[in-house]
Order: sequence, then structure tokens, then C-alpha cells
Amino acid sequence: MSKITYPVIVVNLKTYIESTGRRAVEIAKAGERVYKETGVMVVVCPQYTDIARVAETVEIPVFAQHIDPIKPGAHTGYILPEAVKEAGATGTLINHSEHRLRLDLIAETVKRAEDVGLFTLACADTPINTAAISILNPSAVAVEPPELIGTGISVSKAKPEIITNTVEIVRKINPSIPILTGAGVSTGEDVLKAIQLGTVGVLVASAIAKAKDPYSKIKEMAEAALKA
Amino acid sequence: MSKITYPVIVVNLKTYIESTGRRAVEIAKAGERVYKETGVMVVVCPQYTDIARVAETVEIPVFAQHIDPIKPGAHTGYILPEAVKEAGATGTLINHSEHRLRLDLIAETVKRAEDVGLFTLACADTPINTAAISILNPSAVAVEPPELIGTGISVSKAKPEIITNTVEIVRKINPSIPILTGAGVSTGEDVLKAIQLGTVGVLVASAIAKAKDPYSKIKEMAEAALKA
Amino acid sequence: MSKITYPVIVVNLKTYIESTGRRAVEIAKAGERVYKETGVMVVVCPQYTDIARVAETVEIPVFAQHIDPIKPGAHTGYILPEAVKEAGATGTLINHSEHRLRLDLIAETVKRAEDVGLFTLACADTPINTAAISILNPSAVAVEPPELIGTGISVSKAKPEIITNTVEIVRKINPSIPILTGAGVSTGEDVLKAIQLGTVGVLVASAIAKAKDPYSKIKEMAEAALKA
Amino acid sequence: MSKITYPVIVVNLKTYIESTGRRAVEIAKAGERVYKETGVMVVVCPQYTDIARVAETVEIPVFAQHIDPIKPGAHTGYILPEAVKEAGATGTLINHSEHRLRLDLIAETVKRAEDVGLFTLACADTPINTAAISILNPSAVAVEPPELIGTGISVSKAKPEIITNTVEIVRKINPSIPILTGAGVSTGEDVLKAIQLGTVGVLVASAIAKAKDPYSKIKEMAEAALKA
Repeated sequence: MSKITYPVIVVNLKTYIESTGRRAVEIAKAGERVYKETGVMVVVCPQYTDIARVAETVEIPVFAQHIDPIKPGAHTGYILPEAVKEAGATGTLINHSEHRLRLDLIAETVKRAEDVGLFTLACADTPINTAAISILNPSAVAVEPPELIGTGISVSKAKPEIITNTVEIVRKINPSIPILTGAGVSTGEDVLKAIQLGTVGVLVASAIAKAKDPYSKIKEMAEAALKA
Repeated sequence: MSKITYPVIVVNLKTYIESTGRRAVEIAKAGERVYKETGVMVVVCPQYTDIARVAETVEIPVFAQHIDPIKPGAHTGYILPEAVKEAGATGTLINHSEHRLRLDLIAETVKRAEDVGLFTLACADTPINTAAISILNPSAVAVEPPELIGTGISVSKAKPEIITNTVEIVRKINPSIPILTGAGVSTGEDVLKAIQLGTVGVLVASAIAKAKDPYSKIKEMAEAALKA
Repeated sequence: MSKITYPVIVVNLKTYIESTGRRAVEIAKAGERVYKETGVMVVVCPQYTDIARVAETVEIPVFAQHIDPIKPGAHTGYILPEAVKEAGATGTLINHSEHRLRLDLIAETVKRAEDVGLFTLACADTPINTAAISILNPSAVAVEPPELIGTGISVSKAKPEIITNTVEIVRKINPSIPILTGAGVSTGEDVLKAIQLGTVGVLVASAIAKAKDPYSKIKEMAEAALKA
Repeated sequence: MSKITYPVIVVNLKTYIESTGRRAVEIAKAGERVYKETGVMVVVCPQYTDIARVAETVEIPVFAQHIDPIKPGAHTGYILPEAVKEAGATGTLINHSEHRLRLDLIAETVKRAEDVGLFTLACADTPINTAAISILNPSAVAVEPPELIGTGISVSKAKPEIITNTVEIVRKINPSIPILTGAGVSTGEDVLKAIQLGTVGVLVASAIAKAKDPYSKIKEMAEAALKA
């Protein structure tokens, strides 16, 4: 499993055309460069088809965007945890806002990921749902109010109480699980606030994946994280 | 889009551990060798994570096991047709028995595949359902009675009337669409019968993916196809 | 199974508050009155919870909005065809735009409905998809472009070619299946045009379910149907 | 919302033919009789189509087997909480083993039920998952290991540690939420053990729904509950 240090910037490349194929590799290289320059951990989450190429090229952790809670067998078209691992991923997102899962399957997915040795970053939309998911014992959780995803309006600015409430509720249940902030994160300032509000990093997508200069944008965020 | 010649052997690698990662590459190489030796087209369908490595290594067509009918954008964890294409696939399975889809989404998936230039091999379980799917105009169809999938008992032996009925009904609706036979195909004889019953090839999985010597098994099937 | 005569007005009560509970019964009574006055068949599709009360009160056919392709057994929360029949329904919608189904499950649902003796009105969004669904041999089909559903802009006015194309393509495959028009139907004129374009009636929802005077609205549509 | 007293026997009628239509009414009457005779609360969960008939006939609480987290509107074929309430239900099961839901939709369903005034009995399969669901604040929870459902082998006998673990973990998170036991409950002794292990009642299905004499079976369970 991936050893993740904090603060961390997790870059979800989604299925944007700007982050598909060799552009996924370029963004990953930018992340690796920032990591080497600043020491701030950068994780990149490419599409399944890009995991192997990205993982061969960079030394920073590569996560899948999702895995299915299946065992090796006859499951045409599904995402086998072992295959993701073998391609070079060391972790995975789970239950992202665009890929919500059944409660029982989140639990099974966390277990399958553990079997295989994948870090699990489980997402949820509200403080309460983040608390519920934290009971299932993923490696880390991220709270992302879906109404802000892709807006460029950061949750840490627009709804800081969502972050502080999440930290408070999750801490009662799971005192040590790392908590990340997501949704609308687009500047270094957003990252700084996310950390000041009690989380250990951010989950960010379009602000980096669609940036003209991903390196500068990741650098801006990493440097802000260091100020916290 | 892939130029597929007939007869054809389509090898679905599913999510077997025996066909994950570099073993997917080895099976694909075996298929390429048989193709070069016999002229019988072999298509290989690895997991998403293996498409790029397989496509870089062999010249035979590589198909995805599924694609989602999405456009580039924010669709974390889904299968973007453009990404599959960029990784080197030239086609995709659709609506496999283990990955059934909504009727409207099959139609949208066929259109998205066409946009991007991917060959579509659409699967169904009965003659009637194969006819229904053939109206949606995929590049080819395959009939696979699910009760025989993975049994080693070939549909061409156990239920030849399913194949002849499918050919008859589909031909009324779409006179030229290639029709393949799937489910339980495990020997050269199964392939020969499938072709004699009016189809242009087979969709095969465990018999090759789990074979000790995939090359010999594919060779046996290709040589049988040439006798038809 | 319900004996449906044509022309027909099928009233989908959806899950509007205006058509829940005793209001469903009132709308059904209005439909029955119009049927008795005009001879134009009116079918009403209430929520599951209202089927028994509606069917006890009126003599016009009552359809479910959906059934699941299950057999009696342990299926908590699903819709058993036998239960719908026992409550008094004589038919069901299948694959409505707001409740799309897998191709294989549409086929199974049609078969389960036949077992139990329920009329099946299967919906689709495009001429091609309506043709595909007509191969599965439901009792009747309806074409409903989803972009017009709930708009009050009738498909028969805005996109008459969708209706004529549907009729043309479906007729090649299934010369006798009744074809209905849906989406945006809100006036008598819409109904008249739908019939003039070659269909046998309409599938209508909000124009009646949310009408201040459902009786007058149904009457307007039935009288227009008689002019065709 | 339903006022539920404890101990309670919740009878899930599922979609058995033996508990459809007027047989649902008969089982409900048997439950009401036992309630009147013993004071032990009996709740009955018929199919949607039977809710109104059952609720008109008996005074014991009637629950739906599921509701969808929708608001009144255009949702053909889904289960509107308001419709279930209007038909006479005062509560609902949520996330039953045969009807698992997405984590975020469980949370939304609990909220919609609260809006409308429905009691929510949320089910889960393991102690951890029951704890996770208890954070979402349903009215009560039930733990049901799915491998025992329908077996006639009671969880309280076969795996008592599942119940005691559930009570222990849930109590840390939610000190007051009522916890029920489900899966394989078939005798009075099973009910007694379930209560002795720290839960307030049982969720039972086939043992009552398929009983030749439902009254005697419910009576046996109620009397055992009184011994606890």
C-alpha cells in the first residue's frame, strides 16, 4: 500500500480529454516535479487505461478512480483490484460524487482493497455521510459537497462549516483517520484554508486537469500547503 | 475503426487472474502468432488497465470489454470511449452477459463508439434479443446463452437451434451484420460447428484465458475455422 | 389481459402530488366518464399504492407504471406482477423514460406480464429504439422523445417526423403492433395529429394529472381522437 | 409517525404469493389479534399494492418495504413517500438485504421519511455496516446476516456474536437507537434469544408469511418476547 505523507494534494484526472493519455502522463510528471521541489505529497488518479503508463513514468503514488469489489473471475468490463495494483496503482478513490456506491459495497470494496494492498480514499457529500463512511475504515476520507464540485468556488471559502463539522463528527468516531477537503478547490488559498480548518489536504480535479500549466497550479497549491 | 476479417476468434480475457497484466500480453502474442500463421483473425479483449500494454505489443485488434456512453468531462471512474481508443483499442464489446445495459444506453454506446471510431461487438442472450440489438446497428453481434457461459459445453453442440434461430431472425432485420457465436466454446470442433451453423466466428473466454498453453488452443480453433 | 380498443388515451399519473391517493381515484372517474360518453378508451396508470382503490372504483383499465421481472419469492420492495394483477391492474407500462430498463430485463418483463395476463405498453425514446423494443413483442409500444416530456410542446407538432419514422420502421418489423405517441401531449389538437400521423393514441401525463379539471381535458382529447 | 413500543415483531411479507393480496390482510389481522392479546407490538410490511387494504383493516402499524428518496413529481414507477403515507403506512423498511441502497440515498431516504412522518427501520448485514447506518439517524436499525435470511437458522442461535457485536458498536455511536435482530428467525426461542442478546425485537419474514397458521406462529413469538 501507498505510504502517503501529509499535507497531500490528490489530483483526480476524471475523464477530461485534457487529462487523457499522454496528457495524463504530463500532469503526473508535473506533480512529481512539485513533490520533489516542495516535499508536499502529490497523488494522481488517471483513467484505468492510463494507470500503467503513468505509473511507469513517475514515482509519486498513482490511484485508480474506482475499483469494483470483485474477486478474480468472470466479470467482463469490471475493475479488478488486482489488475489495478498490477498496473502500478497503489490506491484508489471510492464512492466519488460521480460514482456513488451502495453502503455494503463500499465496505466490501475497502476490504478487497486491503487484501490487495491498495490505499483507499473514500469520498462523501456531507459531514454525517463522511462519518458513516469513516466507520467502514478506509485509509482516509474526503468530504466534497457536490453542489460545489467543478464550480471553482471552494468549499473551504463558501462553506467552511462543512469542513469543521466533518472534522468534529468524524473525530468522535475515528480519532486518527486522515480527512481531506474537496469540491471547488482551485487556488493555493483554498488549500491553505482547507488545512487550517483541520484537514490534511485536498482532492482537486478541473483546476489542475484543465489548467494550461498544471505544474504552476500544483506548485501554487503545494506552496500554500507548506504555509499552514 | 478496426478492419475485422472473417472467420474471427474474439478472446475475452475477462477479469481472470490468469489473464491479467503481462499474462494478457502473452495471450495476445499467442493470438497474433496464430493470426500470422493461419490468416484467421484473432481479436483480444483485455482489462482496461492492460489495453495500452497489449496494443503496444501486438498488431492484432485489441477491444475493450465495455465502454460507457459518456462524453469527455466529469465522470470519475467511468470508461471514456476516447480514452480506450487513445490507449490503442480499435473496438469494444457491448452488453456482455456479465455487463448488461439499458436498451437506450446500448444505442448511445453504439453511437459514441462510432463517433470515436471503435468497432462494436454487441452481445445478447437469446435469438430475439440479438435481433433487437441488431436494429441498433452495432458493427457485429454475438449470441451467448448465459446458462452455458463458462461451462465448457458449447452452445453449438448443446443448443444449435439457438444459433440457427438467431441467424434466421437477425437476417430478416439486418441482412449483412456479422453474427458470432459465444458461450461454452472450448474446442476446434465447437468453432467449426458455429461456422457451419451460419455464424462468422466465436466469442471465447476461459478456454483460452485459463489454458496452460493459450497458443495451442487458439491454433486449434483457427485451424478448425479454416475447415469450414 | 386488458382488451384495449383504439383510439386510446393512456393517462400516466406518475408521482405527482396532484394525482396521489383519492385524487388518483377522481382522475380515474373522470376518465371513465369520458369513456362512457365518447367510447374512446381511457386507461389510467396510478402509483402502486393506489391501484387497488382505483380498480375497485372504475371499470376502465388500470395499468401499473412498472413491474419487475421477478417471480413470487424473497424480493423485498420490488414489484411482483402477480401482486399488481391481484390489486386489479390489467396492464403495465414498461421502460418509461423515467424508468429505463436493461434490454434483457425488458424481454423478461414482457414474458412475466404474459404469464400473469397483463397488457404491456413498452416505451422508447427514438424510432430505432422503439423498433428494437417492438421485436420483444409487448402488447403495444409508445415513442416518447424525452426532451419533450413535461414541456407541453407536443411531439406531434414539434417533431412529427419522429412519429412517422417510428411508424415506418416499426411496421417493417412488426406489421400489427399498436403504436402510441407520447411526450408533451397537452391538447385535443395534439391527439388528432398523433392519430393522423399513423399512431393509435397517446400517452399523456401532466396535462391531465395536473389539470384543474381533468374531466374537461380528457374529454377534449377524446373528442379530438374521434375526428381522426 | 408510528409510535412503536418494544418488544416488537416486524413481519416482512416480501413478494411471496402466500402473502399477497387478501392473504396479506389475513396475516395482518393475525398480527393485530396477537397484539391485542399480548400487548407485544406487531408491525406488518406488505407489498405497496396491499398497503391501503391492510391499513384500512387493521390498527397495528403498517410499513412499506422500501421508499425512494424522491419528491412529488415526474418519477414514473418509483415509490413516493407521500403516497405510501397517504395509503396508510406509518413507516418503512430501508436498505433491506434484498434491496440495498447507495449510502447517500439511505441518508436522503431517512430525511424524506422524516419530512413525511414515516418511521424508518434501516437494515444492514454486519455490525460495522449497522453502525454506519445508525449514524444516518433512522428511527431504528436491524442487523441481518444475509447468509441466514430465509434459512430457518436463526442468527441468534447460529451467530449470537453478530448481535452482541452490533449492540456494542452501535451503542458507542448512538446510545439510544432501537436495535432489531433479523435473518432466520423462526421460533419463539429465536425471539427470546434475540432480546436476551440486547436487541428489542425481530424482523421476520418466511416463518410467518409462509406459515400454515400465521396467528399461532406470531403468538409463539410474542409470548416468547414477554419472557425476556
